[in-house]
Amino acid sequence: MTTSAHAPFSPLGRLQALLDVEVALAEALADAGVVPAASAAPIRRAARAGRYDLAALAAEAAEAGNPVIPLVRHLTRLVAAEDATAAGHVHWGATSQDVMDTALVLQLRRELGAIVATLERAADAAARLADRHAATPMAGRTWLQQATPTTFGAKAAVWMQGLDRARIRLEAALDGARDIQFGGATGTLSALGDAGPTVARALAARLGLRVPDVAWHTERSRVADVACALGLTCGTLGKIARDVALLSQTEVAEVAEPSAPGRGGSSSMPHKRNPVASARALAAAVRAPGLVATMLAAMPQEHERALGGWQAEWETVPALVAIAAESAAAMADTLAELHVDEARMRANLDAAGGMARAEGLVMALAPHLGRAEAARVVEETCRGAATAARPLLDAAVHAPAIRAHLDEAAVAAALDPAALTTTARHIVRRALEQRRRDGKGSDHG
Amino acid sequence: MTTSAHAPFSPLGRLQALLDVEVALAEALADAGVVPAASAAPIRRAARAGRYDLAALAAEAAEAGNPVIPLVRHLTRLVAAEDATAAGHVHWGATSQDVMDTALVLQLRRELGAIVATLERAADAAARLADRHAATPMAGRTWLQQATPTTFGAKAAVWMQGLDRARIRLEAALDGARDIQFGGATGTLSALGDAGPTVARALAARLGLRVPDVAWHTERSRVADVACALGLTCGTLGKIARDVALLSQTEVAEVAEPSAPGRGGSSSMPHKRNPVASARALAAAVRAPGLVATMLAAMPQEHERALGGWQAEWETVPALVAIAAESAAAMADTLAELHVDEARMRANLDAAGGMARAEGLVMALAPHLGRAEAARVVEETCRGAATAARPLLDAAVHAPAIRAHLDEAAVAAALDPAALTTTARHIVRRALEQRRRDGKGSDHG
Amino acid sequence: MTTSAHAPFSPLGRLQALLDVEVALAEALADAGVVPAASAAPIRRAARAGRYDLAALAAEAAEAGNPVIPLVRHLTRLVAAEDATAAGHVHWGATSQDVMDTALVLQLRRELGAIVATLERAADAAARLADRHAATPMAGRTWLQQATPTTFGAKAAVWMQGLDRARIRLEAALDGARDIQFGGATGTLSALGDAGPTVARALAARLGLRVPDVAWHTERSRVADVACALGLTCGTLGKIARDVALLSQTEVAEVAEPSAPGRGGSSSMPHKRNPVASARALAAAVRAPGLVATMLAAMPQEHERALGGWQAEWETVPALVAIAAESAAAMADTLAELHVDEARMRANLDAAGGMARAEGLVMALAPHLGRAEAARVVEETCRGAATAARPLLDAAVHAPAIRAHLDEAAVAAALDPAALTTTARHIVRRALEQRRRDGKGSDHG
Amino acid sequence: MTTSAHAPFSPLGRLQALLDVEVALAEALADAGVVPAASAAPIRRAARAGRYDLAALAAEAAEAGNPVIPLVRHLTRLVAAEDATAAGHVHWGATSQDVMDTALVLQLRRELGAIVATLERAADAAARLADRHAATPMAGRTWLQQATPTTFGAKAAVWMQGLDRARIRLEAALDGARDIQFGGATGTLSALGDAGPTVARALAARLGLRVPDVAWHTERSRVADVACALGLTCGTLGKIARDVALLSQTEVAEVAEPSAPGRGGSSSMPHKRNPVASARALAAAVRAPGLVATMLAAMPQEHERALGGWQAEWETVPALVAIAAESAAAMADTLAELHVDEARMRANLDAAGGMARAEGLVMALAPHLGRAEAARVVEETCRGAATAARPLLDAAVHAPAIRAHLDEAAVAAALDPAALTTTARHIVRRALEQRRRDGKGSDHG
Repeated sequence: MTTSAHAPFSPLGRLQALLDVEVALAEALADAGVVPAASAAPIRRAARAGRYDLAALAAEAAEAGNPVIPLVRHLTRLVAAEDATAAGHVHWGATSQDVMDTALVLQLRRELGAIVATLERAADAAARLADRHAATPMAGRTWLQQATPTTFGAKAAVWMQGLDRARIRLEAALDGARDIQFGGATGTLSALGDAGPTVARALAARLGLRVPDVAWHTERSRVADVACALGLTCGTLGKIARDVALLSQTEVAEVAEPSAPGRGGSSSMPHKRNPVASARALAAAVRAPGLVATMLAAMPQEHERALGGWQAEWETVPALVAIAAESAAAMADTLAELHVDEARMRANLDAAGGMARAEGLVMALAPHLGRAEAARVVEETCRGAATAARPLLDAAVHAPAIRAHLDEAAVAAALDPAALTTTARHIVRRALEQRRRDGKGSDHG
Repeated sequence: MTTSAHAPFSPLGRLQALLDVEVALAEALADAGVVPAASAAPIRRAARAGRYDLAALAAEAAEAGNPVIPLVRHLTRLVAAEDATAAGHVHWGATSQDVMDTALVLQLRRELGAIVATLERAADAAARLADRHAATPMAGRTWLQQATPTTFGAKAAVWMQGLDRARIRLEAALDGARDIQFGGATGTLSALGDAGPTVARALAARLGLRVPDVAWHTERSRVADVACALGLTCGTLGKIARDVALLSQTEVAEVAEPSAPGRGGSSSMPHKRNPVASARALAAAVRAPGLVATMLAAMPQEHERALGGWQAEWETVPALVAIAAESAAAMADTLAELHVDEARMRANLDAAGGMARAEGLVMALAPHLGRAEAARVVEETCRGAATAARPLLDAAVHAPAIRAHLDEAAVAAALDPAALTTTARHIVRRALEQRRRDGKGSDHG
Repeated sequence: MTTSAHAPFSPLGRLQALLDVEVALAEALADAGVVPAASAAPIRRAARAGRYDLAALAAEAAEAGNPVIPLVRHLTRLVAAEDATAAGHVHWGATSQDVMDTALVLQLRRELGAIVATLERAADAAARLADRHAATPMAGRTWLQQATPTTFGAKAAVWMQGLDRARIRLEAALDGARDIQFGGATGTLSALGDAGPTVARALAARLGLRVPDVAWHTERSRVADVACALGLTCGTLGKIARDVALLSQTEVAEVAEPSAPGRGGSSSMPHKRNPVASARALAAAVRAPGLVATMLAAMPQEHERALGGWQAEWETVPALVAIAAESAAAMADTLAELHVDEARMRANLDAAGGMARAEGLVMALAPHLGRAEAARVVEETCRGAATAARPLLDAAVHAPAIRAHLDEAAVAAALDPAALTTTARHIVRRALEQRRRDGKGSDHG
Repeated sequence: MTTSAHAPFSPLGRLQALLDVEVALAEALADAGVVPAASAAPIRRAARAGRYDLAALAAEAAEAGNPVIPLVRHLTRLVAAEDATAAGHVHWGATSQDVMDTALVLQLRRELGAIVATLERAADAAARLADRHAATPMAGRTWLQQATPTTFGAKAAVWMQGLDRARIRLEAALDGARDIQFGGATGTLSALGDAGPTVARALAARLGLRVPDVAWHTERSRVADVACALGLTCGTLGKIARDVALLSQTEVAEVAEPSAPGRGGSSSMPHKRNPVASARALAAAVRAPGLVATMLAAMPQEHERALGGWQAEWETVPALVAIAAESAAAMADTLAELHVDEARMRANLDAAGGMARAEGLVMALAPHLGRAEAARVVEETCRGAATAARPLLDAAVHAPAIRAHLDEAAVAAALDPAALTTTARHIVRRALEQRRRDGKGSDHG
């Protein structure tokens, strides 16, 4: 909605990025001696997005097939008003797609850089939760059923790891896409005679990018890979959001998103605090796969420049960037100030009569009975306990088939959440240490 | 369709991979002293896929929710027939998903390794085409219209680059997914007491894999990233297939897929040679995006183990692997023996009266007229030539507005394909050199 | 996995469907007098799937580009062994795609008919739940938070309506796809001279299908629409499965999937009952969108017969049919025997101190205070009650700002779930009546 | 980009639709006697989108979780300035989603109505092409290879049929989605006491919509089905665009998109006319599948109102509507003024030495040799003709194996495109007649 030239994918931001490339091209042409040095300055002066009529450009772009064709016309006109010679050097040797793709790379670098930073902030917050709650017991849950106990720190460590992986993946994709597009009509730079490669190097240097071996007009793995990395980012954040949302349920209530005035309210139910950040991240996770699929589906582009596939990317990449940025910010904020209710975690763990700890009993009995028979005996005991609505500890202590092998203390030990989560605590510590060794998260020891 | 235990995603191949993990687990448990060393051998002996009833396992798996639950039952029974103690140690400390995910990693390593090799073979073939045809002029085509000339080598270099990028991307994803899954019910290894981490290290060592910092039961970025890399692979191959198919059209006929008996025939049209390899690769490129989307959509998995998301992966990954393998093989074979008709390339380039070289004229005139006016003059000349159905060279030589600035030789030079593709040849050479420096393609110089 | 010729998308089932079309074609040709009547019988006798080598056909199909080309060869050979003349009439006038598409239509009619019946069974079960629990109060939940009360019947009525809509949608798509494919190489029936349309009518009559106005070789809206309907079916079932899974959570425990021996167990946690049916339906809902996207992406098929797009459909449609069938069966079984715990529903409703009924209080105060002020007052009261951990009723009765307008009985009435769900009960009754009027569900009054 | 309140999915258009629903609700509440009749007018007066600060609303919406929460606040404030009582009746009994979903239905009715009309215009244009060119021979093409001849009218009839089917499908989806959303917080209308159903009927009547049996807050088949219909529309248009683009290739040149000043030009190649309308339709066909997949993936929405799934729809539906509208307009314009080059069609048909007509020869020989042997003989003749670069007619006339059964006239007749397209012409006539009987296309006889 914003139209600031600094918001990369706003209409104005997009326009400015295109103009930035035209300026860099003019300067590169001058660097290479293809056009007089004096031609660059007038082009630079004319290349301020605020000087253009966005609505008119959009209308002409629809007719022309892309926005650069009318933009070059208008830019040339503005330059001509100041310097007729320079006007003749606008857009020299480039094709529209050179400018659009290079502008896209510039925009991606800015936007994805910000997402990378947000992911790091989110991972730091998850690391702090992992550290603080390494030994906070809670129900592990599988198939949405309580299973063996874990600790909240172990859960947070999984989030942390996912966030670190998503960040690393995004950085790799971004680095892989650090190439200018510059090939002219069919990738051969034919319009520049022998000067093409020199201009290309100058252009890349001006923009802080690399020169690719060949033009990538129809070899779209760079942008498609960025899309994949954004899709993975949204999926990773979606997993965290789903956990937060499930843990926030009225009936679970183990965590809550930070509240704020005007946040997550309901127009008819004043008591409610909706997990709006998680909803945003989950919505992004629902949308990202289709958008990534679009980018992959657009890859088989025809010959030297495509018909339809490239155009399909134009709105898809910005949409993916926007939802990934939004999702990352939502979850970074959420993790940074997540309310954690340790007492409720413990209460939920105890609520089902301790059934979730049955595994401990199976393992304690297995050396005596074999695993299968141990499982059978414990299952029977669980069933009996459930029917009688009494805690598993109580039922187990009174079960002859169990007591034949374990005394009361051994039964209690087998069902103790602290004992069952020793390794969980160890895993969390190891993961945090590893993260520090990787140069992240030094601040939360 | 095949049911060989060596075909990774055949029913038998999948079963064997699960059994391989159970064997490695038994050995790792023995390595760590958790179970007696003697327990491993009977488990290994019972773990041959051929000994199981696939149909019965499939039916029980549907009821149980996953294939490992009944498999452990049957495996235990087979082991018990030989060694009751060992039977008690089957699947010790693991959860079904530990076995399924680790088996998946084993299968991916085998299958994707093969795809990587095929992609390299395809890239080598493309490199040979690029080398051989670096200076073979052909029409560059944009929007499916002839544009400025390029060379067939330049086109092949784009294919080569795409294939190399896809391969590198796939290797990276494969490396990122080189981790065992081993966490027990909720990722805490609680069933193994303090021995968990030791067993995990032994298991990873046995299988040539790594131990991850935390369990990735519901942090699916590893497999989702593999899916993305396969999607990019299919997209890259699809681009090449689309080019080959378009160049093979009856009316273009610049290349043809290698023919073979029984290949690409028609049941009613004996004259036809259908580009069946390209069709296969294009079909893969149509299917891959949806399959990748499924993997990304499955990422937000609940808590410690998921409900639905994980299950959605089961058929999706094998389908993606299969189409990527098929597509890679189809295009590697095609590129290795592609028929290239240089004469037809030249004939097509000349057919439209040389209009595709109009850019050369614009560029030659631009220093005199400015770019915009040069374009206007050339456009007018093109239109006149088209109306009169005479070659552009002829029309240009007789156009006063052009001859005011260029003599006849200059006009001819401006329209010469060889001149227009100097940089194309240079780009191809540079790309091939770069590839050799990267340690690929030393054999085609 | 099954290879019965009666399982439509098993390898054998697919083969038989192709053969069925070849037989019907031979008979139609005889009906139209294009081939002698005596040619049909030998073709029919040779057209039993069991007589063919599936593996050999698959290998030859890969080379040829489609399975019909080798099949016609083998079929012709079998017929020739009996009757050389009849052998000359095999596949007369048809192209491979005629046979494959028509066979697909036959298979879809059989399989989707079964899914329609399953959906009706599921809707009937939902209707029974709606009827039985029209007045069973439970927490309505929005954003995974308890909101105003509803009844379990109202929830079941939403499920019922979704199932009925999915069924109707599927029937419509199936009816829209009831056309033979019969056009020969390019849709013109050119190989049959003037007899083409007559043969087409006879073929359709033989198969109980319609003759389309034009061939739909590359106009894929019929199959794509079937795919969409299957996608909607999976989405609808996924919504129900998600609700069932959430309501089955240990901490909610308001419903449970029916249990059965070997069903939903855990290899390490004997106490668990996993909602495996819901997991299956949710997995289908995760997979369907990508598969539908594939079918839509495959639509822009080239000219008279496509290159890649059509081939992309081959595995996609059967996968969609399979998951839709599986999901429908899973949820029909689940709804038919769902365990419903009314007491737990009521307990959960009361657990949060009755906060979920706050809306009733807002509405009761609104005529006195205006809606906004009423909401403000109630929000404050809720917050106070939550802080003091006392029931909302209690807090409200003691809140002067409330009691200024409502007496104790009015406050109690405003918070009574029965009162708050009067309209819910009315809605359920109306929906059930409407369903009966539509001729469904007469048996559950 | 436009912000007119009449552009349904512009920011202003969306806002106005929300306000329109609030107004209709106020009037319905008055109709039902729930609020005083005098409350409706002040609400109506305050409900003009132009009076609101779009940027502020957007920012507050992000915090609140949806745009209606802040909108109701602002609307209430504006009403209050005029009439405090009326302000208390704003949004009475509704939940945010009631307003958003009903507004969406209103917007869809307007926008999809326009697309339906455009599709009809496109189908009419295709029908005119079918009629005019029913007997214009051209190469039928399969696998992008010339196959047997067809007529351009037959191709246009396939387009026409696809367009008619897409339109009918869209109308059906639109009709299926003609329901208000009105259920209050959890679909029970609890806030309105007994008056709920009456208000619902009044609201529906005011808006020209229906009352659904139950609320569809989380039963999303209505909007998902609209999305599917739009996806099918884009796919159908994409098929036509692909055909047009392929036929427009420089080397084929059988059709051309209508040209216009500023349309489809190139910044560096003045001779080019790019098929920009086809590119737009193909881009839409690439994007639609992913967007439809998003809508299907969003279907499994939780309980009474969802967390993430619903939010994922918000930008997806407008994007789908926009590309479908754009694609339909592009192809309607293209078909209405398509340049058709009959001479080039004939020339291309003859260019390959008439090989594409080989089927006619097979069919003529089949009664004498059997189909398989006939095919073998013709294939050999084709190969000989190709090698010798002589026309098939010439080669066939001199082939003893052919002349043993057919005299020279019979060979010529077998290879005559007119003879080979008799049925094509018949099919076109029949399809046009059928369309007239269906009440469409009466104007082109």
